[in-house]
Amino acid sequence: MYLSKQDIENTDRVKRLNLINSVSGIKPGNLIGTKSNNGQTNLAIISSVVHLGSNPAYFGFIMRPQKEVRRHTYENILETGHFTINHIHTSFIDRAHYTSAKFDKSVSEFEACGLTEEYKEDFHAPFVQESLLKIGLKRVEVLPIRVNDTIMVVGQLEHLFLPDDAMDARGYLDLGNMDNVGISGLNSYYTLNKVDEFPYARVTETPDFSR
Amino acid sequence: MYLSKQDIENTDRVKRLNLINSVSGIKPGNLIGTKSNNGQTNLAIISSVVHLGSNPAYFGFIMRPQKEVRRHTYENILETGHFTINHIHTSFIDRAHYTSAKFDKSVSEFEACGLTEEYKEDFHAPFVQESLLKIGLKRVEVLPIRVNDTIMVVGQLEHLFLPDDAMDARGYLDLGNMDNVGISGLNSYYTLNKVDEFPYARVTETPDFSR
Repeated sequence: MYLSKQDIENTDRVKRLNLINSVSGIKPGNLIGTKSNNGQTNLAIISSVVHLGSNPAYFGFIMRPQKEVRRHTYENILETGHFTINHIHTSFIDRAHYTSAKFDKSVSEFEACGLTEEYKEDFHAPFVQESLLKIGLKRVEVLPIRVNDTIMVVGQLEHLFLPDDAMDARGYLDLGNMDNVGISGLNSYYTLNKVDEFPYARVTETPDFSR
Repeated sequence: MYLSKQDIENTDRVKRLNLINSVSGIKPGNLIGTKSNNGQTNLAIISSVVHLGSNPAYFGFIMRPQKEVRRHTYENILETGHFTINHIHTSFIDRAHYTSAKFDKSVSEFEACGLTEEYKEDFHAPFVQESLLKIGLKRVEVLPIRVNDTIMVVGQLEHLFLPDDAMDARGYLDLGNMDNVGISGLNSYYTLNKVDEFPYARVTETPDFSR
């Protein structure tokens, strides 16, 4: 099946949103936790977290601050400079998805969605207690993406929490064993099953293409 | 287990790379196809493709142009303005992974890695024939991420190819049925299994948190 740019422009809006949100492949399922200086907490499901660097450890995520309920998240990050990234697991997919409803700013999605605020290491922003892997980050950059008025928020890792047995001696995590969740489109959720692992690729070590 | 920023700085470099590349969750497995004006093709595995917008349809991906073999990809995109995004499937994970080896610029990873160039709709950049879902994009923006000298390349969708039966009437794709692949860290590959699907979330439709 072939769809041109024009075909996609002519597609019904909701169908187009579903399709175009799916074609980049699987996306990580995370919740972004923030708290205003007044103490109002906010929790937003975000499928656009991306790794930017390991030393220092930087991560980014995409948002559209003018158009979405997630602007409360953005306002809190601008105001306080801190946010958390929390993995979504199979046990609370429904609650994580519900954070995308358009709650009023005075409502905390933690309470409304049945998830628990957790404060650790004197960090300002709330972690999600139910999450097995969580990162506390300091905002270091906000990049405007001019073509469509989205932004990328860039944070530096300050704190990392993970289960004691999650990391092996090489630094590998098995996301499947952690019941970690992937997202496709706007509202489809996937479990993960590790099937292959390869060494660092070297030109001289050709794989067996015939297998 | 708790790791501070300092703990992570003090971790062995390779272990840190593995860990920090894993903690943002599952990443989409894609190959970026390009061709120089001289006809030299290039293919690079990229796990940082992110959706930026649906109308127009924009996608971005992250690279570190100064430090990597992937700079050939970047040079081709700067020179020609076009690139392709091609999904990785379970049938060719090993070949896709091998594109990350440091091949000389005069070597095409298509040939070296046993994957097939495909040209469609008069588009300059090569698609991967073995891939079931592929996108042809025009470069529209290159964003410098100043904190660590990475960049985000932003492209606009011009062409989309997908299997005839992949999309349902609502625009949903089942990435699991397509044998689509997710990546964790630098070299772990996952299959995907769709387990949940929810309607657009509304404040008034509280899920059953007790299930």
